Amino acid sequence: MERFFQSALTEREGVEQPVSVNPNLIRKKRKDLSVDDYVAGILGGDWMVLSRAITMIESANVAHLQMAQDVIERCLPYAGNSFRVGITGVPGVGKSTFIETFGNMLTEMGHKVAVLAIDPSSERSKGSILGDKTRMETLSVNPKAFIRPSPSGSTLGGVARKTRESIILCEASGYDIIIVETVGVGQSETAVKSMVDFFLLLMLAGAGDELQGIKRGIMEMADALVINKADGDNKRKAIQAQSQYKAALKLFPQPESQWTVPVEVCSALENVAVDKVWEIMTRYETHTKGNGFFERNRTNQLVNIFYNWIQFTLQNNFYNRTFTQQEIERLLPLIRLRKISPYKAATLLIDEVAKTTD
Amino acid sequence: MERFFQSALTEREGVEQPVSVNPNLIRKKRKDLSVDDYVAGILGGDWMVLSRAITMIESANVAHLQMAQDVIERCLPYAGNSFRVGITGVPGVGKSTFIETFGNMLTEMGHKVAVLAIDPSSERSKGSILGDKTRMETLSVNPKAFIRPSPSGSTLGGVARKTRESIILCEASGYDIIIVETVGVGQSETAVKSMVDFFLLLMLAGAGDELQGIKRGIMEMADALVINKADGDNKRKAIQAQSQYKAALKLFPQPESQWTVPVEVCSALENVAVDKVWEIMTRYETHTKGNGFFERNRTNQLVNIFYNWIQFTLQNNFYNRTFTQQEIERLLPLIRLRKISPYKAATLLIDEVAKTTD
Repeated sequence: MERFFQSALTEREGVEQPVSVNPNLIRKKRKDLSVDDYVAGILGGDWMVLSRAITMIESANVAHLQMAQDVIERCLPYAGNSFRVGITGVPGVGKSTFIETFGNMLTEMGHKVAVLAIDPSSERSKGSILGDKTRMETLSVNPKAFIRPSPSGSTLGGVARKTRESIILCEASGYDIIIVETVGVGQSETAVKSMVDFFLLLMLAGAGDELQGIKRGIMEMADALVINKADGDNKRKAIQAQSQYKAALKLFPQPESQWTVPVEVCSALENVAVDKVWEIMTRYETHTKGNGFFERNRTNQLVNIFYNWIQFTLQNNFYNRTFTQQEIERLLPLIRLRKISPYKAATLLIDEVAKTTD
Repeated sequence: MERFFQSALTEREGVEQPVSVNPNLIRKKRKDLSVDDYVAGILGGDWMVLSRAITMIESANVAHLQMAQDVIERCLPYAGNSFRVGITGVPGVGKSTFIETFGNMLTEMGHKVAVLAIDPSSERSKGSILGDKTRMETLSVNPKAFIRPSPSGSTLGGVARKTRESIILCEASGYDIIIVETVGVGQSETAVKSMVDFFLLLMLAGAGDELQGIKRGIMEMADALVINKADGDNKRKAIQAQSQYKAALKLFPQPESQWTVPVEVCSALENVAVDKVWEIMTRYETHTKGNGFFERNRTNQLVNIFYNWIQFTLQNNFYNRTFTQQEIERLLPLIRLRKISPYKAATLLIDEVAKTTD
C-alpha cells in the first residue's frame, strides 16, 4: 500500500502516462493540515478547508493524493445527501448566466450550492478560478455557494475522477445541491451524466438543422431541455423551438427512469421561468425516488467508481516503480527507431515488471 | 504470458469491465486458419482472409485475441507504407458520398483503398456491414477497395485500439490509402487524429453561429477544411463560407506541421473538385515528409500505441483471473448495499489479487 501513490500521472485518451512533478506546483502550504483537520473543517462547513482538500485531490503530488484518499474515505459516510445536477449546452447558450441566476435562487430558498466544472481541454491554471468567479459575479460572492473551476488534466477520465471525488467532499461539507457544468463540446457529457441525478440540456432557439445531428446523442441523455435566452426578440422563436423539440422528443425511446422529458423556456438574464426549471427537478426527484430509479442510478454510479478506481490504481501501481520508469526509458528509443514494435515492447515491459520487486 | 488473454472485456469510459462471453458471438469458422495462413493470406492480398483477421481483432474470444496479436506482430514489418486519412464532419455533411467518390477516384489512379470507421456509440452487429456497403454502393463492389464498418464496443478506447490494429493488417495487405471515418459527433475525432497522417474536416455551407463553438476544437485538428455539397443553389453559399473559414483559420495558431490549412469547396455528388482534395493531401505529404513532421507524427503514434497497449494488458491481466472475478462478485453486493466504499473495495481487491497467484 505504501507504494500506492508514489508518482504523478497525467492521463491521455484514458491512458495514464508518467510525468515528472513540477516542484513549483507543490506550493508552500499556509499551514499544514492533518487528515483530522481536513475532515473536521469539511464537516464543519469551512469552505477554505474544502477548497484546500479539493486542491489535494487535483494535486499530482504523491503525499497529497494519499492524504486526499484518506479524507474522502472519512467523508463518504456524510456524503450522498444532495441533488446532483449536470448542466450542458453549446458555448454561447448562457450556461454561466443560467447557473448564476439558478444558484442564487436556490440559496435564497435555503440551499447550499456547489458548482463544479468539467472541461478536459482546459489548460487553466489555478489562477483562472478568478475567471470562473468573474463569469458568475454574484454567485461567487454568495456565502452559501461554492464555485470551483474544472480540474486541469488532458483526459476526460482524469478530470472526471477528480470531479467525482470533489462532489463527495462538497456533500460532506453540507452542500445539498451540486451543479456539474460541462463545456458542451460533446466530449464530457457522458462523464457528467455518469455522476449526476439529473441532466439538464440548455438550448438556443433558431439553431440550424445541421446542429441537430450533433445534439441528438446529448438530447437522448437529457432529463430536461431548457431553451434559454427567451428574451426580447428571441421570445417568439424560443416558444416555436419548444414545440419543435417537444415533437422531436416524442420520437425518442422512453428512458429507463420512465420520466417524460419536459421542454421549458426561460430567460436566465431576466430571471424569467428559472424557478420552473427547479420545479421540474423536484418533480423528477419525487418521480425517480418513487419508482426506485434514483437509488438504482446512484448504485450504478458507485459500481462505476469501483471500476474506475481499479483502473487508476492499476496504472498508478505499475508506473510507480523505478524499474518501470527505467525500462520505459530504455524501450522508448527502440520503439522510435522501429527496432521493437510497441505491442511487443509493452508486453515485454509488463512481463519484466511482474517478475521484479523493487 | 499464457494468462494474457484469458477473458473477454468490454470497455466503458476508458475502464475495461469484465463481461461474460456470449457463445453465439463465437461463430463457427468456415475453416480454421493458422497464424501462417492468416499472414500468407493478408500479405497475398486476399481480402477474405484480411476480413477474417479483423474479425479476430474485434473478437471477445480469448484464443482469437492471442492469435490476432501474433498475426499483427508478423504483419507489422509490412505495414506503415500508406497514407492514412481521417475524415470527419457532422451527420448530413455527405461523408459516405464523399468517400465513395474519393475512393473510386483513387482506385482509378491505381491505389488500393481501405475504409475503416470509428463509432463508439455504434451498436451495430456484424449484419450491418451491409448497411455500410449500401452507403457506398459502388465503392463496396470495387475490387481495389476494402470497406469495414466500425468495430462494436462501448468505449472509444476499445474501438480505437481495434481500428489501429486493423490499419496495420490493411497496410500489410497492400492497401496504400487508409481512410478512417468518424461519425462526427465530437467524441472520436481525437482518437482518429491520433492514428492518421492527415485529418480532413468536411463542412456544410450555411451552418449557424451556434455550430462554430462545437467545431472549433475539431477545426483546430484539421489539416484541410472541405465544404461539401457545393452543388445547385448551395454553390454560392459554399464559396462564401470558404472565405469565411479562411478568415477564421487565420486566427488559429500555426500547427506543429507548419502547414497552412487550406479550405476547399467540392461536390462529392457531382464529382466536382474531389480531385483537388487529393491534390491537397499529396501536397501535405510532400510538405510534411520534407520537414520531418510526417515521420515524427508516426513515431508519436507508435509511442501512444505502447501506452495504450500497456493499459489494455494491465486491465486484461487483472480481470483475467478466476480469483479476481470471484472477489468482484463478492464485493459488488457490498458496494451496492453501501457496506464498503467503491474506493476501499477497489484498493482491497487489488491488494488481494497482488498477493494471490491462481
